[in-house]
Amino acid sequence: MTCETAAPAAVAEALGIAPARVDDELRERYARGVWSCLTEPGDGVAGSLIAVLGAVEALTCVGDDDPDAGLVAGVDAAALRRARARWRPRMGDVRPAFQAARRCGARLITPADPEWPHRVDDLGVHAPVCFWVRGEAAQLAAPHGAVAIVGARAASGYGQDVAMELAAGMSADGVAVVSGAAYGIDGAAHRAALAAGGPTTAVLAGGIDRPYPAGHTDLLDRIAQVGVMAAEVPCGTTPTKWRFLSRNRLIAAMSDATVVVEAGWRSGSLNTAYHAGDLGRPLGAVPGPVTNATSQGCHRLLREAQAVCITGVSDLKELAGYATPDAPASGDGHTDDLTRIRDALSVRTSRSTEDVARRSGMAPAEAGALLALLALEPDVVRDGDGWRRCRVG
Amino acid sequence: MTCETAAPAAVAEALGIAPARVDDELRERYARGVWSCLTEPGDGVAGSLIAVLGAVEALTCVGDDDPDAGLVAGVDAAALRRARARWRPRMGDVRPAFQAARRCGARLITPADPEWPHRVDDLGVHAPVCFWVRGEAAQLAAPHGAVAIVGARAASGYGQDVAMELAAGMSADGVAVVSGAAYGIDGAAHRAALAAGGPTTAVLAGGIDRPYPAGHTDLLDRIAQVGVMAAEVPCGTTPTKWRFLSRNRLIAAMSDATVVVEAGWRSGSLNTAYHAGDLGRPLGAVPGPVTNATSQGCHRLLREAQAVCITGVSDLKELAGYATPDAPASGDGHTDDLTRIRDALSVRTSRSTEDVARRSGMAPAEAGALLALLALEPDVVRDGDGWRRCRVG
Repeated sequence: MTCETAAPAAVAEALGIAPARVDDELRERYARGVWSCLTEPGDGVAGSLIAVLGAVEALTCVGDDDPDAGLVAGVDAAALRRARARWRPRMGDVRPAFQAARRCGARLITPADPEWPHRVDDLGVHAPVCFWVRGEAAQLAAPHGAVAIVGARAASGYGQDVAMELAAGMSADGVAVVSGAAYGIDGAAHRAALAAGGPTTAVLAGGIDRPYPAGHTDLLDRIAQVGVMAAEVPCGTTPTKWRFLSRNRLIAAMSDATVVVEAGWRSGSLNTAYHAGDLGRPLGAVPGPVTNATSQGCHRLLREAQAVCITGVSDLKELAGYATPDAPASGDGHTDDLTRIRDALSVRTSRSTEDVARRSGMAPAEAGALLALLALEPDVVRDGDGWRRCRVG
Repeated sequence: MTCETAAPAAVAEALGIAPARVDDELRERYARGVWSCLTEPGDGVAGSLIAVLGAVEALTCVGDDDPDAGLVAGVDAAALRRARARWRPRMGDVRPAFQAARRCGARLITPADPEWPHRVDDLGVHAPVCFWVRGEAAQLAAPHGAVAIVGARAASGYGQDVAMELAAGMSADGVAVVSGAAYGIDGAAHRAALAAGGPTTAVLAGGIDRPYPAGHTDLLDRIAQVGVMAAEVPCGTTPTKWRFLSRNRLIAAMSDATVVVEAGWRSGSLNTAYHAGDLGRPLGAVPGPVTNATSQGCHRLLREAQAVCITGVSDLKELAGYATPDAPASGDGHTDDLTRIRDALSVRTSRSTEDVARRSGMAPAEAGALLALLALEPDVVRDGDGWRRCRVG
C-alpha cells in the first residue's frame, strides 16, 4: 500500500516551499501534521510510536506491509495492527488539510516550538501531536499562567456576569483565559478577556478554518486576531461529539486550574472538570441558587468531585496557585471573659463590681481586674462607685 | 457563708411540694436546677464536680469555708477556688428562678429523664447541667433524628424558601428541626416544621419565660404548645452575647447534623457551624449567588470548613446519615468507540462502512462490527449498501 511519508518532495509541496529548504526539522513538523490527519484525538498507540521513533520514522511504518514494522516497547503487536488498520483509511485526507491550513493562515505548532503549551505534556501518550493555530501563537504557551473558565451554553445572566468578572480579573494579571468558544459561559469568558486586553485561547473541537458555533464567527475572528484559536485536529475536520469530549481534555490540560461557572446536571463542562481532576489540576466551581438548574452541575462538583467553591477573582487566583490566601479573619466565635463582663454592663445604669461579678458569673476580684482592663476601651467607663457602658460614635 | 443546698425543705419549697415527697431523685433534680443558676453555660469546673460527686454533694461544697472542700480529680485546687468565688455571688438568684419557672409552666429536664437529649452528652463537662423547657418535652430527645437548620437574621427570600423546604422535608420523616428562634432563617425553619406538623426545638439564649426576639413572641408561643422551647439558663435570665454563643453549641450538639442556609461573612450562625465541626458532627452549607452578601458565610464554610454543599432535602438526609446516596448518574464523559461511529453517521445520506471507518478513525472491520451493534438501536439503520442515522420520536 502506498502511504504518506515525510519525503522532501511531499513536505515541500504541502508547506509550499522549495524542496531544497526541507530539513529534518521541517520533515518532523510536517510528519506531526500528517499524524493529526491520520488519528482521532488522543490516540495512545500513535503517541507511543511517535515518542519512541519520532514522527517521521513512525509515519513510514503506517503503510509498511510487514505487520510488525514499527513495533515499539509498550505497544503490543495486535494493538499496532489494529491501529494501522484505523490510520490507513485516512491517508487521503492529508493534502486537503494542509491546503485548507494555508488558505486560512493556520500555523502548525509542535513540541519543538517555543509556543508549545507544555502543560499538555502531562497527557503523556494522549497529548496532541501538534496544534493548528490562528492568531497570536505566543499566547498558547501562556507564560503568565492560564486558567480554564468554562460552563453551560444555556447560561443565566448571573453566570455570564460571574464568568466575565473572573475572566477580567485574570486578564488584569496577564493570565490566559482558556475556553471552548461555546455560547454562554465560554463566550462570556473570551469576550471579557478580549475587552480587558488579556490573552485568551479558544480551543476548538473541529478545524480552525470552521468557526463553531456559527453564531460566534465574529467572536472567533476577533480571537484569531488578538487571541489564539487552536485545535489538535486539522483544518476541514468537522466537530463531532467524540471530538468535543477529546477537546475538553485539552482545555483542562492547557490550564493551571479549571473553574466551572455554571453547568446543568449533565453539562459537557463537567467533562472538562473531570479531566482537570484526572490530571490532578485544581478544580473550582462557582455556586449559585440551588433553585437554578444552571447551577446544579456546579453543586454536583462541590459535592462529588471535591471542587473548591469559587466566589470571585481572589478565590480563583488562590486555586491556580497565583496568590497566597489572606489570613482568615478573626473575631468569629470570639467568646472570652471580657465578653462576659461587657455583657453584664448597662448603658442605662451604673453597676457595682459585685453586681457585675454576679451577672457575669465571675468572682468579684476577677471581675474587678477585667473591668479595669475594659476601662481602657472607649465604651466602658467608671461611673462613681460602679461601671457603665456608653455608646460610642 | 450560708449557701443553697438541696436540703428537703428547700427542695419542697422550690418545687411546691410536700417535704415528705422529697426523695433523692428530686433532690438531685433540684440541685441541677440550682447549678444552672450558679453558673454561666458550659462551666467545666461545675461539670467536673457534678460528674464525680453528683449535683447534691457538689452543691454542699460551694459554701464550705474549707478551700479544698469538694476537690475532685481533674480539677486543681486553684481552679476550684476561683470557680467557687464565681458561683457564690449567684446564691441569691436561685429562688426567684424557680418561682418564675412555676409561673410559666416550665419543666426541669435532667439526664435522668427519658426526655434528656443524649446527643449533648458529647459536650462532656461542658454539657448543660439541665434544661428548662416548655412544650412537648418528649421532642427534646428527638427519637427520629434532629437536624439544626440555622442562618442569618437578615435572610433573603431565597434563603427563607430554602430553609422552609429543608425543614418541611425533615418534618415529613419526623426529624426534629432544631434552631434558635431568631428572625430570618431560624424563624422560617421553625415555621415550616410547625406547618408540617413536625417536631421542632427552639433553643434560647435567655430564660424560656422571656420570648426573644420580642417579634417572635407568637411563634415562640406556638412552639411552646406543639414544639419545645428549651434553655440551659434558668427563667429570668437575660440573653447576652456570651449566652448566645454558648447556646449555639447546644443547637449543634442537639443535632445529628447542622446546615447553614444563609449567613453573612461574620454571621453568628457560623459559630454554630464551628461548634458542629468541633463536635465532629456533619456540617452542611447551602450555596447561593456569589453576588449576595447573605450567602458569603455559607461559601466561606464550603471553602474553609469542608462543609458539604446542600442543595435540597435529600442532600440533608444524606448528610445526617438518614439516607444512602443515590448511585451517581452515569453517562457523563461517556466516550467510547460507539460514540465515534455514531458521530460518523449522517441523517441526510447513507455512508459505506469504509467511509464510516475513515471518518471515525477506525479500521473497516472494527467499524463494521460496531455498526452491526449500533443497528440494534432505534436510530441507526442499514440503508442499501450503507448506514444512516434517523431521527427518532
